[in-house]
This record gives sequence, C-alpha cells and structure tokens, in this order.
Amino acid sequence: MALCDIGFVGLGVMGKSLALNLADNGYQVAAFDLDQDKVDAALAQDKLENNNVARVQGCESFQALLASVKAPRTLVLSVPAGAPVDSVCRALIEAGIEPDDTVVDTGNSLWTDTVRREKQYAGLFMFFSTAVSGGEAGARFGPSLMPSGDLRAWERIKPMWQAIAAKVDPDTGKPIERAEPGNPVKEGEPCAEYIGPNGAGHYVKMVHNGIEYADMQLICEAYHVMREGMAMSPQAIAAVFRQWNQGVLDSYLMEISAEVLEQMDEVTGQPLVDVILDRAGQKGTGMWTAMSGLELGSPVPTIAQSVFARSMSGLKSERVAASQLLAAPQVVPMSDAERSELIQQLHDALYCSKICAYAQGFQLMHTAAKANGWTLDFAAIAKIWRAGCIIRAVFLQSISDAYHRNEDLANLLVDEFFAGEIASNQTNWRAAIARATVMGIPCGGFSSALAYYDSYRLGTLPANLLQGQRDYFGAHTFERTDAPAGEKYHVQWGTSERRQLKM
Amino acid sequence: MALCDIGFVGLGVMGKSLALNLADNGYQVAAFDLDQDKVDAALAQDKLENNNVARVQGCESFQALLASVKAPRTLVLSVPAGAPVDSVCRALIEAGIEPDDTVVDTGNSLWTDTVRREKQYAGLFMFFSTAVSGGEAGARFGPSLMPSGDLRAWERIKPMWQAIAAKVDPDTGKPIERAEPGNPVKEGEPCAEYIGPNGAGHYVKMVHNGIEYADMQLICEAYHVMREGMAMSPQAIAAVFRQWNQGVLDSYLMEISAEVLEQMDEVTGQPLVDVILDRAGQKGTGMWTAMSGLELGSPVPTIAQSVFARSMSGLKSERVAASQLLAAPQVVPMSDAERSELIQQLHDALYCSKICAYAQGFQLMHTAAKANGWTLDFAAIAKIWRAGCIIRAVFLQSISDAYHRNEDLANLLVDEFFAGEIASNQTNWRAAIARATVMGIPCGGFSSALAYYDSYRLGTLPANLLQGQRDYFGAHTFERTDAPAGEKYHVQWGTSERRQLKM
Repeated sequence: MALCDIGFVGLGVMGKSLALNLADNGYQVAAFDLDQDKVDAALAQDKLENNNVARVQGCESFQALLASVKAPRTLVLSVPAGAPVDSVCRALIEAGIEPDDTVVDTGNSLWTDTVRREKQYAGLFMFFSTAVSGGEAGARFGPSLMPSGDLRAWERIKPMWQAIAAKVDPDTGKPIERAEPGNPVKEGEPCAEYIGPNGAGHYVKMVHNGIEYADMQLICEAYHVMREGMAMSPQAIAAVFRQWNQGVLDSYLMEISAEVLEQMDEVTGQPLVDVILDRAGQKGTGMWTAMSGLELGSPVPTIAQSVFARSMSGLKSERVAASQLLAAPQVVPMSDAERSELIQQLHDALYCSKICAYAQGFQLMHTAAKANGWTLDFAAIAKIWRAGCIIRAVFLQSISDAYHRNEDLANLLVDEFFAGEIASNQTNWRAAIARATVMGIPCGGFSSALAYYDSYRLGTLPANLLQGQRDYFGAHTFERTDAPAGEKYHVQWGTSERRQLKM
Repeated sequence: MALCDIGFVGLGVMGKSLALNLADNGYQVAAFDLDQDKVDAALAQDKLENNNVARVQGCESFQALLASVKAPRTLVLSVPAGAPVDSVCRALIEAGIEPDDTVVDTGNSLWTDTVRREKQYAGLFMFFSTAVSGGEAGARFGPSLMPSGDLRAWERIKPMWQAIAAKVDPDTGKPIERAEPGNPVKEGEPCAEYIGPNGAGHYVKMVHNGIEYADMQLICEAYHVMREGMAMSPQAIAAVFRQWNQGVLDSYLMEISAEVLEQMDEVTGQPLVDVILDRAGQKGTGMWTAMSGLELGSPVPTIAQSVFARSMSGLKSERVAASQLLAAPQVVPMSDAERSELIQQLHDALYCSKICAYAQGFQLMHTAAKANGWTLDFAAIAKIWRAGCIIRAVFLQSISDAYHRNEDLANLLVDEFFAGEIASNQTNWRAAIARATVMGIPCGGFSSALAYYDSYRLGTLPANLLQGQRDYFGAHTFERTDAPAGEKYHVQWGTSERRQLKM
C-alpha cells in the first residue's frame, strides 16, 4: 500500500469528520484510535461515502500509524483537551516519531498548555496547533481553522488545511455552502490562515468563543424583551429574526435562533423553546476569555456578563423561589405603535451591542498579542471567521475591512464604518435599554455594551474621584492632569492642613 | 529585658501600625525588618508616642527575634504578598522556630497560597492568617480582622486581636472612633472573629475588597451623572453626598467621597478632584474576586464591571482620542424639578445597586464555602465589617440581622428587609438608569446590579433559547421543563424530520 499523506490519532466525531473532509479533497489518510471500533466506524463511513473505495487506512498501533505516513510526517491529534494530548505525545515518542515530524493538536486546548507543549517537545518533533471551529458539520464540510506554531510546519500543512477549510465567496463575503460528502468546494477564500507562534491560534479561538457567548446572550436578550415584555409568540419572534437576518444582523446565529423558535415540540405540540429548561451549560472557553480580560486589564464586560448570565440561569430553583418573593416593576401598557417602535429599537440595540462585543474581543486579542509578543493579523482573523464557525456573519467582512483600512486600529469602535453605524443607531439602542430597564427585563449584555461604548468615548471618567478615595484611605497616590505622567501625588488627609505632597 | 508577647517581621506602614496598636493595648512587641531603618523608625515613633518609654523592642536578626518572644511564640508577618512570605518562613525555620510557634500572615495573600502554606509548614510551625482591612489608620487605631487557620492558634491570638480591633457600639451598630495614640477603646464589640480554617479569612477579605470595588464604582457613577450629566460642581455634589450620608447610605466611603469632593487643590485653587487624573489603579483583589465568581459559577457582574471600569479608565490616551471621533447622544435639557427628581433617583439607584453588590459578594462566599467545606458565619462576617474596614457602614448591621433571621439565607435579596427596600425604591432605580442611559453617562455598575436583580427574580430566563442554539450547533442537548432534571434531549436539527431524541 502507498504511504498516506497524513495520519490521525483520535476518530471521535471531530477527528472522523476532519479525516473524511481530507479524503474528499484527495488526501490519503492513516487513522488510529485506542478504541478500534471508532477506526472501524470511520473506515465504514469512508467506504459508504466513496462507492466502496477506501481512502482512509486503519492502523492498529502508534507504530503502524508512523509506518503508514510519508516522512516528514504530519500527525493530527483529535483527542480531548488536557492530559490525553500529552499521553498521546509520549506514546508517539515511544513509537519512534522523528524530529522533523509534526504533531497538530486540533482539540480545544487551553492556549497556555499549547505554549508549554511547544517548548516541551522541541527537538523531539514539531508541536503545532490548529483550533477548529464549526462543530461536527464544520469539520466535515468546511471548518474555520486557526493554525499556530512553527512556520516550517505551517508551510507543509497549509495546502491540506486550505483545501478542507470553509470557503468564502470573495465578492459577497458569504460562505460557499457544502453539506454533502464529495465534491469539495475548490474556489473561494479559505478560512485557514496562519495565526502566529505557539499558543496564538488557541488564544484566538478562545476569544472567538467568548465573542460567541456574548453574541448568543445578546440575541437572547432581544428575544426575552419580545417574549416576556411584549408577550409575543416564539413564531412571531422567529419572523422578526428572519427579517433581521436579511440585513446587517445576517448571521448563522440569527438564522438558527429563528429555526429553534419555529421548532414545535413533538411531545406537547407547543413551541419547543417553551419546554426547553432555561438552565444554560458552559464548557469554559467563555470563562477563560473573561478571565484573560481581567488579567490583562482589557475590558470585556459584555463577555463576562454573558458568562454570568449562564451561571445565573443555572440557579433555577433559587430563581423560582425568588420569583414569589421579589417585586416586579409595574406593567406599563404599550400601544401598537410603541410595540413596533420597540422592535426596531431592539434591532438597533442588538446591532450596536454586537459591535461592542466584537470590539471587546478584538481589543483583548490586541492586548494579548502585545503581552505575548505575537503579531496578529486581525483582518485575516476576521476573514477566517466569515465561514465555517459559529459566529460566521457578513458582519465579519466589515471587521476585516476595518483592519485593512488600518492594521493598527486601537479599537473597532473608532473605525469610521463602525463609528458611523453606532452614531446612526445609538438613539434606538439607548431607548431599547431604557425601556427594558423600566419593564424589568434583564439586559445586562446590552447595557454592559453601552457602558463600554460610553466609557470609551469619554475623555474623562469618574476614576478621578476613585483615585481620590484610594489616596484617602490607602495613600495609593494619584497623578495630576497638569503634571507629567507617572508623577505621584498624595494628600495628607489625616491632618488638618491636608498638604499635597509630590511623592 | 523581659520576653515580649509577640514578634513582628516587617515594619512597613501596616506592620508598624499594628505593632503600635498592640503596644497601646499593653503588649510588649519585638520587631525585626530586613531594613534596619524601618525598625529604627518604628522604635522612634513608639517612644515619641509614649513619653519616651519604649514598648517596642528592636531585633537585629531572625534569631534575635525568636529569642525575644515568649514561647509558644506568636510571630506576625507584615511583608508583601507572594514570594516574600515564603522566604521569611524559610528564614524562621533556619533560625529555629518551633512546632508550637505560630506565624500569622497579615498580608494581602491570595487565599490559595494560604491553603498551600498551612499544609506546607505543618509540623514546622502553625501557619495562621489574618487578613487586615482598614489601611494604615485602621491598623493603627482599630482594624477589621479576618483570622483563619488552626483553632489552637486562634485561642492564643484572640485576646490580642480583639484588643486591637475596631470596636462597634452594640446599641447603634456604629464604630466607636479612636484616632489618637494611647487610650485604646476597651468597650464595644470587637471586629475580629474567627472566620474558618486555612484560606477562609483571606478569601473573605478578598470578597470584602471585591465589594469595596463595587461600592466605590457605584458612588463614582452617581457622581458622574451629577458632574457630567447635570454639570453640578464638586462642592454641590459633596453637599448631596453629605446629606445621603445621614440615611441608609451612611458609610465611610460616602463620607470620604464628600471630603475628597470638598478638597481644594493648593496649586490651582480648583476643586482637587478636577485636577486628579482619571486613571484608576488596582492591586488585584477585585480581579481575584471576579475570577473566583467566574470559576465557581457564582454571578458577580457588578464586581467584574467595577474591575473593568478601572481597566477602561487606564486607557486614557485611547479614550481622549476616541472622544474626538465617537458620537455622543443628543443633550436633552432638564427642568429644575427634573434635576432634583434625578438626584433622588440616583440616591435610590445607589442604594439598590449597593444591596445587589453585597448580595453578589455574600452569594460568592456562600458558594466558596460549599466548594471548600468551610462553615462561614455570615452574620459574624457582616458584623466585623461594621467598623475598621473600608466598607464599614450602618448597612452591614442590616446584613448581619438578615443572616441572624436566617443563617441559611440563599441570597440577601430574598431577606424580607432587603426585598422590601428594593420593592419601595426600584421605580427610582430604574428611572435613574434609564436617564443615564439616554444621557450617555456610563452606569455599568448600576445596570449590572439591576440585571442581577431582574434575573434573580425571574423564574424563567431566555437560557431556553440559548440551550436550543447550543443543541443546534453543537449537539449539547437540553433538559425539558416537564421531564426529570438531568434527562437530556437532542433534536436532529440537520435532518428534515428533526426528531427529538432522549439521550
């Protein structure tokens, strides 16, 4: 048998899908899994989809895998994040992997683990990483790929990754759809570009997920105002979402939200959403993003708010008990005209808040890049998110354009396009928040986004009073607006003269 | 010379102040610092304050310190958090510290370090911790103390700690003031109670600081609306704050805010606050609190928002640039009646938001206690915060009362007193946020607090749509409102039938 182009360790949902995607694109794949059943299932599906002609070759051991792949080898890991990645690396070392071979971790690893691993395995093999977004369907028919690590490894992997990645129509900025085996999309711009050294790709994917949390939360808040505040049916809200999906909010998340709202429950005959329990799960990447923002001093309030909203949803029984005890605001009746006005206001609130959530995410990547010595191409990152991943949207083309205009953009908010979009929509944004506030529908995502905007656009914030407080109780000193930066002053608050001293 | 009652390592501002406070209370103190100048300064101040009679005895080495203190020894560490704590512990071991001696870390240590240290030094000496709040003045004349660790160590330290701690008048719940050397306060309830094992005290102190961040931020938001939104002078705002300080908002932070706002700058003759640079510093404890909330899934959005507000203030040059580019909302003129109405609304917004910030902090401690197997007495914790510390306020008596009524209270919000306070003030709270939102004054603290309240009081949140989205793109499954908890369902979204499966 001929040697394969690439080897896989791990044939779970994601590994199998990536392997079959490579096979569709003409690559010979060697495959190994500690669970032989998973290998068999992948081989069977491969044959089924390809007129009984195998393109994936099963291997029964790590040694067999190494023996089946052309040198220098490219070996893809699709195993759970954490300890399994290191145990597979150790097994590959024992099996005789060579220094010029590459191991590509495609799991949801914490980026700091990736940084550590690249150092740890240097000299034994090249440890490379590729964060994958798009879930099972993305992996199978076109994911968004965020590769990072040694550039020599990237040069080898690039043709394969760009072949299997989601493609974007360069004229429309929209995904070129593929949802069937075979016939891969050859044209279009591939959603796979080199991100940077070591952990950069996993970091960028983590921020992608943080933004995804915020995007979902903001959609939920718009839904909540319509459902609880305006007593609209899920179907009616779906119709609003379908309409919004025709304009600036056109996105995968908007589209699937409409589909979820339209879905009827086969058990009760009610709208499915009404019988889904309102207790949200989370897997950690949103939390990591919020923590990174806290640690780096890069404000991501809307992402943090989205993580907390999920935690709050988890306190279901406490909430049900509290709902009997805590006062709601008085209901203010709305006219039909006010109702349709509020729907338009919610649209604009969602759009402006979304801009702020993405601005927070990109600002965080900017700060992290500086802190870690990475050079990140934000225009390219926005481009590879246009298709294949969960936050895919036409909107990302506008972000890419903004960074094309100015690669050193301090913040998306000051780009001329986004500044203009907010300028023309802010009145409605503010009105929607004011209404939800009075109605008693929580909109922490919307309002944290607005506070982010209003703080960012104000040359003076009340932190002057705060520094005065800190100097008063803790002698933490303050700077003066009329003195050079870094010059510290302190008032002797405890004395009757209260002299001001230059420290 | 007679042996001393207690020894100090580290005579910086905090160490010196605690040592002199102990001396005022009749304890003989042995003192060592790697910087001999600091020892000399402490000895000089001691003599100056005590008619030339020394109560603090200088030591020139760790050995000399150990030789100067009665066995079993109590040695207080007042050194920077982090590595210095461990290096002093190692030095004490080398100098011959004994298993029955106690080392009390009074620094701002990360609580997980305290947990680790208690294990690490077990058998060599008892590692005990006492978080200290109140800054320099608190340490000198009566701090709030949060001791934790081995109960045997606590029994020994208790008389000293309760002697030097701040005292509360049991009839009024207010601090008994002392601001001069000598004549310590003997009566009243001491703000020093045992918190729990190992890291509990430092954890509780960390949450105290997180609450402090939120409290300060909320005051700053009220100030900001009046200063920027209503063009009131700092003096006029100080007058409002002085008035607020007579009622439910009576607190140290309110009082010093008024004093800062009244302070004139001796250089320019302007109000000092107008020349203080609006770039806030932070030392990490607020950030740790927010991170702990993220990690434990206990929502602390107002604390996180306060940390992010400080980060945002740090981006001064970006903000100044953005202020030239980003659109402000249209100014809506206000009548005199509307102005005084808004001031009352801000009062109520500050009060309700403050209740929510404290509720978040106490909920977090509740969650952390469960996670770490601590039994925390929340009524006692609220009591020791009534004096000595930065967040001291009459308000804490109400919190203590709430936990006295029900020690298993799920959340402060459902206590009858606080539920009633919010019920009668919420209309103004909502109105203040709605106004600030339209005016363009950022009020992320107020609005995150309101979102917290509105989420907590709603039996149904839009996380049902969110779970639908997650099931759609990631097959994450959902629970049903009409099925047993833990039963997972999944819709086959990718198929035309969209069957719902029980997983």
